[in-house]
Amino acid sequence: MNEFNRTDRNKVKSAPIRADYDKQTVYDIVDSGLICHVGFTDNDQPFVIPTTHVRIDDTIYVHGSTKSRLINHISHGNKVCITVTKVEGLVLARSVFHHSMNYRSAVMFGRGQMVTRKEDKLKVFEALTEKLVSGRWADARTPNQKEIDVTAIAAVKIEDASAKMRTGPPNDDADDYDLNVWAGEIPIEEIRNNPIADPKLNSEIELPDYLK
Amino acid sequence: MNEFNRTDRNKVKSAPIRADYDKQTVYDIVDSGLICHVGFTDNDQPFVIPTTHVRIDDTIYVHGSTKSRLINHISHGNKVCITVTKVEGLVLARSVFHHSMNYRSAVMFGRGQMVTRKEDKLKVFEALTEKLVSGRWADARTPNQKEIDVTAIAAVKIEDASAKMRTGPPNDDADDYDLNVWAGEIPIEEIRNNPIADPKLNSEIELPDYLK
Repeated sequence: MNEFNRTDRNKVKSAPIRADYDKQTVYDIVDSGLICHVGFTDNDQPFVIPTTHVRIDDTIYVHGSTKSRLINHISHGNKVCITVTKVEGLVLARSVFHHSMNYRSAVMFGRGQMVTRKEDKLKVFEALTEKLVSGRWADARTPNQKEIDVTAIAAVKIEDASAKMRTGPPNDDADDYDLNVWAGEIPIEEIRNNPIADPKLNSEIELPDYLK
Repeated sequence: MNEFNRTDRNKVKSAPIRADYDKQTVYDIVDSGLICHVGFTDNDQPFVIPTTHVRIDDTIYVHGSTKSRLINHISHGNKVCITVTKVEGLVLARSVFHHSMNYRSAVMFGRGQMVTRKEDKLKVFEALTEKLVSGRWADARTPNQKEIDVTAIAAVKIEDASAKMRTGPPNDDADDYDLNVWAGEIPIEEIRNNPIADPKLNSEIELPDYLK
């Protein structure tokens, strides 16, 4: 199965032409995002909490303190929705009505459980670290037993999901193409600027190759 | 009242030292984000949907098609959580455990209602457009009656909210400062690249000053 099943909750109703249920398309969006937004309901109240994440196969991992409301709620098997969004541009149409954004988003549904085995937790720590900066895990001090114990990790297997995206120039009404109004896209990009050394860094330690 | 009341739902439990309940701090984060993530619960299922937004005073406005599940659900008075997050940097500590992100986020709670009066809808359209690009409203063709009618706008008055943020270098354990590991920040920035004209743009139309 290369596609997620369409269900009542993941079927895109607004602008369905922009929807995609291909698993790899969803995974690529998930992997390209530094953070996700996790939604859950507690006592009839919805919450949306931003957090870092990593995907391994068809499972999303999020972590936090063992006291975290988010992680505890997720890991008790409650329903969650996890969304990753990349804004890629502003779309300026001739009419205000057709102004839009270029973006890619993935909306995923599942239930969480706690990751408890030490070797599984270490695997997630490594994946989270390498997702931030490839090469970092082999350089930084890896977690000790106490650090492993005070970190809670929730695993959410993706049951169903959808991607949605918009690309390209504006789509104006036929009559509006004669208007004397500039139209086009303003690309938006998330960039990493030059590393800034910790003021407390030993001055003999050079920037490692994997950060250049 | 310059601060939001602390309630059970907006009180930050994880790393409370990073929390802020000042209204202007929350509003500044909300205004700096191009999109928000809206959380709601429908039939016991949480949803998190990304969308554009604009704030006017203490109210968040989101819009969509009159058929949109998101807008219809919000505008019927259901509880929602709206979150705006800005990722500002990766924090590389000497230990994997203290790796972190610099960010600013605002988590807001309220209930929605539909905006129905034409003059109110136009005010929101103008604010949404000017938030994308200042000067655009006076240039693009403004919405006609049909476009106003097919666009649904939900207004969510913020009942309570909190901001959370992290800035600055890593905080390592005392023993780890002697490790031979580079530590510091990698700033992350969302930039707007040069405008790309619509391939269908009349070549006599120049880029307006407000886009230069």
